Amino acid sequence: MRNVTAEQAAALLRSKDRILILTHLNPDGDTLGSGFALLHALQHLGKTARVVCGDKIPPKYDYMRRGIQGEAGFQEAFVVAVDIADTKLLGARLEAAYGERVDLCIDHHLSNTKYADALFLEECAATCELIYRVITAMGVEITPVIADCIYTGLSTDTGCFRYSNVTPETLELAADMLRSGANFDDINRVMFETKTRTYLKLEALVLDSLELLFGGRCALVTITQEMFRQSGSNETECDGIASLPRKIEGVSVGLTLREREDGSFKVSVRTYAPYDASAICAKMGGGGHARAAGCEIEADALKTGKDRLLDAVGTELETR
Amino acid sequence: MRNVTAEQAAALLRSKDRILILTHLNPDGDTLGSGFALLHALQHLGKTARVVCGDKIPPKYDYMRRGIQGEAGFQEAFVVAVDIADTKLLGARLEAAYGERVDLCIDHHLSNTKYADALFLEECAATCELIYRVITAMGVEITPVIADCIYTGLSTDTGCFRYSNVTPETLELAADMLRSGANFDDINRVMFETKTRTYLKLEALVLDSLELLFGGRCALVTITQEMFRQSGSNETECDGIASLPRKIEGVSVGLTLREREDGSFKVSVRTYAPYDASAICAKMGGGGHARAAGCEIEADALKTGKDRLLDAVGTELETR
Repeated sequence: MRNVTAEQAAALLRSKDRILILTHLNPDGDTLGSGFALLHALQHLGKTARVVCGDKIPPKYDYMRRGIQGEAGFQEAFVVAVDIADTKLLGARLEAAYGERVDLCIDHHLSNTKYADALFLEECAATCELIYRVITAMGVEITPVIADCIYTGLSTDTGCFRYSNVTPETLELAADMLRSGANFDDINRVMFETKTRTYLKLEALVLDSLELLFGGRCALVTITQEMFRQSGSNETECDGIASLPRKIEGVSVGLTLREREDGSFKVSVRTYAPYDASAICAKMGGGGHARAAGCEIEADALKTGKDRLLDAVGTELETR
Repeated sequence: MRNVTAEQAAALLRSKDRILILTHLNPDGDTLGSGFALLHALQHLGKTARVVCGDKIPPKYDYMRRGIQGEAGFQEAFVVAVDIADTKLLGARLEAAYGERVDLCIDHHLSNTKYADALFLEECAATCELIYRVITAMGVEITPVIADCIYTGLSTDTGCFRYSNVTPETLELAADMLRSGANFDDINRVMFETKTRTYLKLEALVLDSLELLFGGRCALVTITQEMFRQSGSNETECDGIASLPRKIEGVSVGLTLREREDGSFKVSVRTYAPYDASAICAKMGGGGHARAAGCEIEADALKTGKDRLLDAVGTELETR
């Protein structure tokens, strides 16, 4: 593994063709915005490229695909991973196929496991900030669709510029994307405003499950498959729900346990400073950022898994 | 009335002392951020100044007051109104005292009734953008507390940079305020994230009142005094609730009717393009911006008032 700069990553991409772009499971605005922005830029240079994801890409991101050319018989010759800290996040199928042959990784997670041959890593709010630098270093103009992709990553990874990971540079890049034609108000409406009636029903059920712990400093909500059935909602509507428990006055650590179809639980941890979400999740075999991290609880170990999680939260609350 | 530039407004303020700054009823982050930013800047120039409001200023804005000097025996010699489109928005007491003697108004509402002797008016996302230009034209450095005040106006008047009123200049000014030390993540947490448990209860009651009208294109919610009693919540917690009905998928016009203690209703209208909230409210004797406006319904005319409101909505939905 060698670390590369934006310019070196750009030179590498310019020298290659038939480029496969990997995005992470449970795809969000930053991995998809990074992937599709890069795809559009590579097409402008006359190259063929494709974005793949181990999960289905929700239709709300369809605007990122406009103007993409088909590539019948595409066979990758170079593999890029965007916004992926660990090959586990590719999902089993893509990890088996590409986990050991990623040529270039562009990522903003300091927890990156350095699995790629070349790694362009810097800490910033969104991987899209790094993708912008690579694209401009490749000499490609920021078209409106590229601006839409990059704006989406900036906006979704910062809760619409709300969280402590925002820097002046994040806001200035967002301003540039507006000037390049990003359709920002429609994007924000889809990503942050619009709630389906089924989601609103689910939110009410989830709030009923609220447990306040550690004297009200920690809030825990549980989303079960039964709640999906009752509300008519589903996992693709749940992006924002992990931020719900931390919103309650006095809460510094918010925990969301979401039951999967196989009975296992995806745990999302959100904190306010000084509490470290990634430290909590590291004790559970997970990881992420200081204020937003995740881990897993196996189906057959809900009780012990939850106990371990709360032990980790207790330690974090006591020792900071 | 004469229109003035930022430089002329700054020169006027530099030439005066004992400056009273008026903010609007139901004070929000933009009127208070404008008022307190100007107050701090005037104090830096060695002047005495005071911010007043016809309503109680919620304690969540207390951070804007740090470092303010007392001014015993203050008697105003110059009156400035910030973010106030109409002297009615001063409230009865302040309107009677100052409605006809406002020396300078700094405002971003195109609906401004031009009541002041001198008016610095430009359309932009927040009056705080104009205040920033006046303060820098006065030659005052942006201190961290001034940055907090200005950032608050930018952030709260744009739904944290979410809405269509954001421009590249708004984002760039926000970036500057971060560089000047704005404590933006704490501010956003207080303004956008934190919800009390009483507010969450109120929100559930309000959602139960939801009516979908005009084939689901308009959503109406009603907040009654009884709901305040049931939830333990109150009006000061309701800033964000007006944006709730518009969030429902398919809704272009969101209406919120909030009952006051005297039985009258404050109506908040929120729209998506191309529908004009101020056109709807103008028919009710109110006003505001294209996507956010307000009007009143008297206590003794709820039924007819609601009918007139829905007529205005119907016309707006049909004619665009």
